[in-house]
Amino acid sequence: MDVDAYLTERSSLVNRYLDEVVPPASEGPTSLHAAMRHLLFPGGKRLRPALVFAGCEAAGSPAEMALPAAAAVELVHTYSLIHDDLPCMDDDDERRGRPTVHVAFGEAVAVLAGDALLARAFGVLASGSGNLDPQRRLAAVRELSSAADSRNLVGGQADDLTFRAAPGDATAIESIHRRKSAALIAASVLTGAGLGGADPPLLERLRCFAEEVGVAFQIADDLLDQETGEPCSLVRVLGPQGARARAEELLEVALARIDDLGERGEPLRELARFAVRRSR
Amino acid sequence: MDVDAYLTERSSLVNRYLDEVVPPASEGPTSLHAAMRHLLFPGGKRLRPALVFAGCEAAGSPAEMALPAAAAVELVHTYSLIHDDLPCMDDDDERRGRPTVHVAFGEAVAVLAGDALLARAFGVLASGSGNLDPQRRLAAVRELSSAADSRNLVGGQADDLTFRAAPGDATAIESIHRRKSAALIAASVLTGAGLGGADPPLLERLRCFAEEVGVAFQIADDLLDQETGEPCSLVRVLGPQGARARAEELLEVALARIDDLGERGEPLRELARFAVRRSR
Repeated sequence: MDVDAYLTERSSLVNRYLDEVVPPASEGPTSLHAAMRHLLFPGGKRLRPALVFAGCEAAGSPAEMALPAAAAVELVHTYSLIHDDLPCMDDDDERRGRPTVHVAFGEAVAVLAGDALLARAFGVLASGSGNLDPQRRLAAVRELSSAADSRNLVGGQADDLTFRAAPGDATAIESIHRRKSAALIAASVLTGAGLGGADPPLLERLRCFAEEVGVAFQIADDLLDQETGEPCSLVRVLGPQGARARAEELLEVALARIDDLGERGEPLRELARFAVRRSR
Repeated sequence: MDVDAYLTERSSLVNRYLDEVVPPASEGPTSLHAAMRHLLFPGGKRLRPALVFAGCEAAGSPAEMALPAAAAVELVHTYSLIHDDLPCMDDDDERRGRPTVHVAFGEAVAVLAGDALLARAFGVLASGSGNLDPQRRLAAVRELSSAADSRNLVGGQADDLTFRAAPGDATAIESIHRRKSAALIAASVLTGAGLGGADPPLLERLRCFAEEVGVAFQIADDLLDQETGEPCSLVRVLGPQGARARAEELLEVALARIDDLGERGEPLRELARFAVRRSR
């Protein structure tokens, strides 16, 4: 499987959908809508939507079935980046080579743009094609809500802020990665698989797979981003070699969980290898 | 109908439920969870949850059926107050006689507490009692998402911020009220009625009723709060008497919409009169 081709193809699929579900910047309030789109387009690699599609394929269903979930996780991811960049959080001026949303549109609009993207995500997930089983869609709403709430994404960010004042050891760092990064990675795979009709035992295995991949993905991110000197990073505690070894270890554990999925599991496996070993 | 008794009884119902669905402050991250609870408890009059219950009764169903929606709208309302109070928005130090969340917990935690309450709201709405029809629950998720997104709640707040720099006339003010305040009031009535099984024609009438009540409610709020000198207020443009007359006019239009609902509509009617004519 050519993972670059997979990412490119799935990106354009989700991009078209995202463009439909987020109001145009020509519609008022124009600066709010422009701010919502600023980081969303052109966006990054769309790894989370790709994992949604791959999760759906692992359940034996066509990827397109999971389109609402692919868009919803990217909306949540984008909201979290906008709020993390705020002056009261990481106070970042630049992201993906462009000014952050609060630099471009002001702090108030940046807070509101994040809020609106988060609220919209759940509406997108609950809408989409009418053919989807309503129970599966409700389960996807619960999964995404749980990944984004104070026990996961938001709680991980809160603990990350505390960590800067009082850094901890490798275990503390992995616990933060597990909530701040891996929870949304897991929700991507699980909403995709759930909409695709995966049964509870498969969902449970995919959850274990995706959580390990999510932590390893965050380590890979920190390896690529060493110059920022982020305190909550295994690279700081274990050194680059130690951190890379830990990421590989987590990847192996993850891959073993879906070893027997055969052809269906191939997109997930390839995306996991790419996420952990990428050089960009 | 004794509206005070109705509000008291329904408050305790939703308070018990909210206490269950929001993590305790003893669970980590403790300051995040304490911040989420700071404004939520003891909270205000719980008017929005009462409207959810009343909406469900208007559809001929027992109020308790709509409990997840009652909790969810209060979570969204609380998130919006926390973010509106932020230094980059209204910069308020006090609310309901206590320090605002960012004063008590810092700005970063206040942003995160609002985010977590918003994310949690959708999970609560998609969970709750298993007896509810899944299609009705999905419709409730869509309704709440739409009320909270950039076309309504968040868009109204964005336009309110713009309005302060360049104030407009009564029409502009009502347009902001309609999105910033009335949309969530309408979502309260409609999620309640929807979960209770209201058919599309009834939902449409209830939407008209609730939107008018929502604008009138905001005018009543501004009448009670004249000393703040809020620029986006009909009191400023029409004077207290003119504003009160407009609120009464909207209330009459609203009540006419549900004139024929008989006994079932009584809680909605009484809550509407209370919301618009209250002195606290």
